Amino acid sequence: MIRASVIGASGYVGQELIRLLHNHPEVEIGSITSTSSIGKRYDKFYGNYFGIMEKPFEEQDIEKIADESDVVFLALPHGVASHMITDEILKKTKIIDMGADYRLKDVAIYEEWYQTEHLSPELIKKSIYGLCEIKKDNIKKYNLIANPGCYTTCSILTLAPLMKEAAFDSDSIVIDAKSGITGAGRSVDVSTHYTECNESIKAYKVAAHRHTPEIEEQLGNIAGKQIRLIFTPHLTPMNRGILATCYIKMKEKMDEESIRKLYLDYYRDSEFVRILNEGNLPETRWVKGSNYCDIGLKLDKRTNTLIAIGAIDNLMKGAAGQGVQNMNILFGFNENAGLSDIPIFPV
Amino acid sequence: MIRASVIGASGYVGQELIRLLHNHPEVEIGSITSTSSIGKRYDKFYGNYFGIMEKPFEEQDIEKIADESDVVFLALPHGVASHMITDEILKKTKIIDMGADYRLKDVAIYEEWYQTEHLSPELIKKSIYGLCEIKKDNIKKYNLIANPGCYTTCSILTLAPLMKEAAFDSDSIVIDAKSGITGAGRSVDVSTHYTECNESIKAYKVAAHRHTPEIEEQLGNIAGKQIRLIFTPHLTPMNRGILATCYIKMKEKMDEESIRKLYLDYYRDSEFVRILNEGNLPETRWVKGSNYCDIGLKLDKRTNTLIAIGAIDNLMKGAAGQGVQNMNILFGFNENAGLSDIPIFPV
Amino acid sequence: MIRASVIGASGYVGQELIRLLHNHPEVEIGSITSTSSIGKRYDKFYGNYFGIMEKPFEEQDIEKIADESDVVFLALPHGVASHMITDEILKKTKIIDMGADYRLKDVAIYEEWYQTEHLSPELIKKSIYGLCEIKKDNIKKYNLIANPGCYTTCSILTLAPLMKEAAFDSDSIVIDAKSGITGAGRSVDVSTHYTECNESIKAYKVAAHRHTPEIEEQLGNIAGKQIRLIFTPHLTPMNRGILATCYIKMKEKMDEESIRKLYLDYYRDSEFVRILNEGNLPETRWVKGSNYCDIGLKLDKRTNTLIAIGAIDNLMKGAAGQGVQNMNILFGFNENAGLSDIPIFPV
Amino acid sequence: MIRASVIGASGYVGQELIRLLHNHPEVEIGSITSTSSIGKRYDKFYGNYFGIMEKPFEEQDIEKIADESDVVFLALPHGVASHMITDEILKKTKIIDMGADYRLKDVAIYEEWYQTEHLSPELIKKSIYGLCEIKKDNIKKYNLIANPGCYTTCSILTLAPLMKEAAFDSDSIVIDAKSGITGAGRSVDVSTHYTECNESIKAYKVAAHRHTPEIEEQLGNIAGKQIRLIFTPHLTPMNRGILATCYIKMKEKMDEESIRKLYLDYYRDSEFVRILNEGNLPETRWVKGSNYCDIGLKLDKRTNTLIAIGAIDNLMKGAAGQGVQNMNILFGFNENAGLSDIPIFPV
Repeated sequence: MIRASVIGASGYVGQELIRLLHNHPEVEIGSITSTSSIGKRYDKFYGNYFGIMEKPFEEQDIEKIADESDVVFLALPHGVASHMITDEILKKTKIIDMGADYRLKDVAIYEEWYQTEHLSPELIKKSIYGLCEIKKDNIKKYNLIANPGCYTTCSILTLAPLMKEAAFDSDSIVIDAKSGITGAGRSVDVSTHYTECNESIKAYKVAAHRHTPEIEEQLGNIAGKQIRLIFTPHLTPMNRGILATCYIKMKEKMDEESIRKLYLDYYRDSEFVRILNEGNLPETRWVKGSNYCDIGLKLDKRTNTLIAIGAIDNLMKGAAGQGVQNMNILFGFNENAGLSDIPIFPV
Repeated sequence: MIRASVIGASGYVGQELIRLLHNHPEVEIGSITSTSSIGKRYDKFYGNYFGIMEKPFEEQDIEKIADESDVVFLALPHGVASHMITDEILKKTKIIDMGADYRLKDVAIYEEWYQTEHLSPELIKKSIYGLCEIKKDNIKKYNLIANPGCYTTCSILTLAPLMKEAAFDSDSIVIDAKSGITGAGRSVDVSTHYTECNESIKAYKVAAHRHTPEIEEQLGNIAGKQIRLIFTPHLTPMNRGILATCYIKMKEKMDEESIRKLYLDYYRDSEFVRILNEGNLPETRWVKGSNYCDIGLKLDKRTNTLIAIGAIDNLMKGAAGQGVQNMNILFGFNENAGLSDIPIFPV
Repeated sequence: MIRASVIGASGYVGQELIRLLHNHPEVEIGSITSTSSIGKRYDKFYGNYFGIMEKPFEEQDIEKIADESDVVFLALPHGVASHMITDEILKKTKIIDMGADYRLKDVAIYEEWYQTEHLSPELIKKSIYGLCEIKKDNIKKYNLIANPGCYTTCSILTLAPLMKEAAFDSDSIVIDAKSGITGAGRSVDVSTHYTECNESIKAYKVAAHRHTPEIEEQLGNIAGKQIRLIFTPHLTPMNRGILATCYIKMKEKMDEESIRKLYLDYYRDSEFVRILNEGNLPETRWVKGSNYCDIGLKLDKRTNTLIAIGAIDNLMKGAAGQGVQNMNILFGFNENAGLSDIPIFPV
Repeated sequence: MIRASVIGASGYVGQELIRLLHNHPEVEIGSITSTSSIGKRYDKFYGNYFGIMEKPFEEQDIEKIADESDVVFLALPHGVASHMITDEILKKTKIIDMGADYRLKDVAIYEEWYQTEHLSPELIKKSIYGLCEIKKDNIKKYNLIANPGCYTTCSILTLAPLMKEAAFDSDSIVIDAKSGITGAGRSVDVSTHYTECNESIKAYKVAAHRHTPEIEEQLGNIAGKQIRLIFTPHLTPMNRGILATCYIKMKEKMDEESIRKLYLDYYRDSEFVRILNEGNLPETRWVKGSNYCDIGLKLDKRTNTLIAIGAIDNLMKGAAGQGVQNMNILFGFNENAGLSDIPIFPV
């Protein structure tokens, strides 16, 4: 039994962590914090916890929490974690950062895309990018895990198996991604007011979304060369889910069956990645509430392009689910501990 | 470890049973059937099961299934179970019928409201109405459980504590209930076509819904007298959830705090009923994916009327969740085995 | 051609007025105001106006606007209009107030329910409650129209024909109303954040909603006696629409056909009220984008109760549509000028 | 005043035509047909027409209807119109075919993608592809108009201005399109059951959708060479709207402002195309209920790719609205007659 704390537990990612940690067989929840709501009971924020968890938010005393916790999840706006984490804290506890501060290895790229100074760049190299299926063997060597972003997890998993293959033109990638509105968080804004996003779809931050360099860096690492790609996020009128429709040109002939085999091999040991059979394509409904990433493949022979489509639950594999998966790896639990429920449908 | 089978596993209630039974620590799934899809793999019907349960639908051989199962769930249209169940079958296995055939003790009322002949009326008295919170102590004595309807579960739980109290006028009850669209099942019809029910609300089967006599019979049993009430169902544009707004006139003065205490006492040992604090009212989002029934109370002093509002997840406490709860009681498991997850939000 | 201005044009009601006035054959739009956005172009607030109306918000100079306008619509929070309107202004122009300040004739009731002092109580008697179907002949005698609330319009129209009839027990009325989320306005709040109200239904302000005394006063006027009733609003996951399910006990026998005839007679000259045929019940989708109020009737013989159900588009007949209808009456236009489009479906 | 009939008036496109024609100042509605519902009143199919249009469906006697109508709209499944239309009929009346039968000039391509024999190929060259903004001057010379598909209208309008420009690589086009569920029509199917498509997004008919060759033919005509492109449709949980996110590589440098100017010039005389200002991108909500196509542009300098995004209401500019626009052109009415209402929001 380990003790896990959540710093920044009032947002959607924090709440999903609490839900998963509470259901987890190996975890007891330690401290929860929210700077703006100290002393307020958790079930006042989230009525689903009434009668289940009435714990109040504590002060955000990272030293004390690190002392008392085996693992601390940070679910904070970008720029906050890099002010908070130090070598001393990492000696006391393990940190799983749900935010962006340690995801990009190149500080300059971080500072350019996030328009903020990074306050602990020396810690970046002591951290690992926690995309479990890609980094699995190495994660347990680190005390600071940069949990990947939602769009990035879906995009990278959908394209990773192709990155070393000469048949695919890695300079031609287009990722057209669609996210549910929980991706925008719980902060109120007219753009996420019910009647402003219900019954409508739009692209946003076109050619400017911060997950772009993250996808490029990770795919580039696999490819062994720099990758430049197009990433376009869309806001879709639904609560949860990300669908990433990815296009990549082929440089050599390869049939769909061989490509599928390549994916099956690549993810042979990854229980949370499901490579769909021929003729099947992912839908966000089939992964909801679960840690799965479903991937479907279709070769467009007319244009000699592979269309690879991935689907995840953005709060699960795209955030809290992967956070728990990282924790499971760090502590040697079964990788699916607390994550084995069947996706819930229709919901 | 018991073996549970599901007859009629292709609809939404059947699927929710499969999901819960698969996650249940004490159960292995035996046979699943669907008369129209024999031999078809389950994950072809429900993509969430891909890689998880690829079992095919078997023939609906009730004798064989009864022989091989500790418990059999029936999720069938009304009128079918009463053709299927016999004393012999009940000697071999326990039956939890998700349908209406054994819910009404008065066969004449069944035949009037369902417009069909009941083929095994002699079994009705050998069955129990499986509303766990009300019938708990007696359920384990029966081999045939009539699992309550969705609207009825919500309505009865919301009103039951008042039925023996002289302060409330049981002749004045109005239940205005709102259901998500899973309540209509998975059969295709223009009325449940996406664009026909999205973004609209309507009442239906006004003064004619079959759950009316079920509510009346059960509340009447508690009250010790005949109850006549008004029940109006509405179709609400959401997947899951039932909200029952119940009105009952007061005959004597009683303050809200005393009424709340009455509910807290009545449900003292019922972990799945949550009586909300003063000022709080239930919302279907807070119970989604869970077996909870949340109840809120507001005394309208101007009109001397109690407004009691209940919320459940119609596929959980309103169907499969309660079915599993009944199974837990029948087999002496913890009542919340397989049902202890926190409600999932936002989903 | 008249000139119409809108004070408070940035909210949903203001915008719907602009849309209707822009499409209206007899109107040109004068000034539009929004105190917080002076100088900002309208199409920056509402992208549907791009290329159509790029007029900026002006200062809220009521004297100047009254001088230059034949009619001024006020779409303001309660308590603001009563500070703004004077006898002098009413000599210059006609005012249609979309807010609550002049709806209640009894100042004490206004001040109790709205918890604010009324600053121009002497103007209340110079105003008329602009529920067109009820007050039609008198509206044109007034320069100050109190446009009714959304819930109230739907509730009153659904019950009005019964109020003088001895067969109905006006002390037994229960109104269970369901509104889309535009009813909550455009101000941001966590309660109207997309993922907080999507896929969930709840009651709110139970036994405490400010439309209650408005319904009681108007129905009481028709009945010729004081009415006390129960009104329960619900927030429904859809953009537009109100459904009011109304229950009233019968004191004498009357068949459904006779009751329907009573409604047809009562609304004989009201083109915007549609009394549905036997067996049909209103759905909010059938009135969307229109000024109709659809009313369906079902007599529950078992409980001797009439269930009368009304449906409107809350932004149309429940607000801006009725505002324009009032304007049409004031200026002697066809009552349906600018309001004759068929309801739009599926939308 | 002309007389317009609608063959196949029971589906969503037929209904939207009826709505627009009924509101149109120059039109009276003649016959309406639906082979499966002869004699049934229109308002029984669509409750919004109650009290407005109670006309019954007539027999589908094309000869008689052609004799009595100035224009006949066909809203039929593919393959039906090509059985129905003859030279004789085209002498009697004008035909606006909402279906696919006359859209593709190359019969072989039609027969390959639609897997059906074309029964009147000789009429294809007597028809014109009625994408008004592109073919405007020529439309009035024809009696047979092939009204474009929904995805195609949005895609072609979004890309057309680039097709003659050497700066853009027309071999690199990717169109990632998202449609509301009305695009799937009113026929019931489990895939369009409310709870199957609510709260989920998916791609479908990937590399196989029939609108692909239509887009290719029309863009190829403008480019003056064959075009091969990737088109991926997605089903989005909303009633109306199409968003087409289009990617095209640049072969020469060109700044965004120059590209925008190119669009503004191209659509200088097209009132229904709105080229958004720098920094603005289309959202389907801003065109709902209108005939607009909104187009936004973003040059991704990192990848030297133009991202052009178009939005339409699929039932309006994507079907019935454009049908009426074609009718307006054919009869010399104002191009926006019956189509000038402001987009309705929030709805």
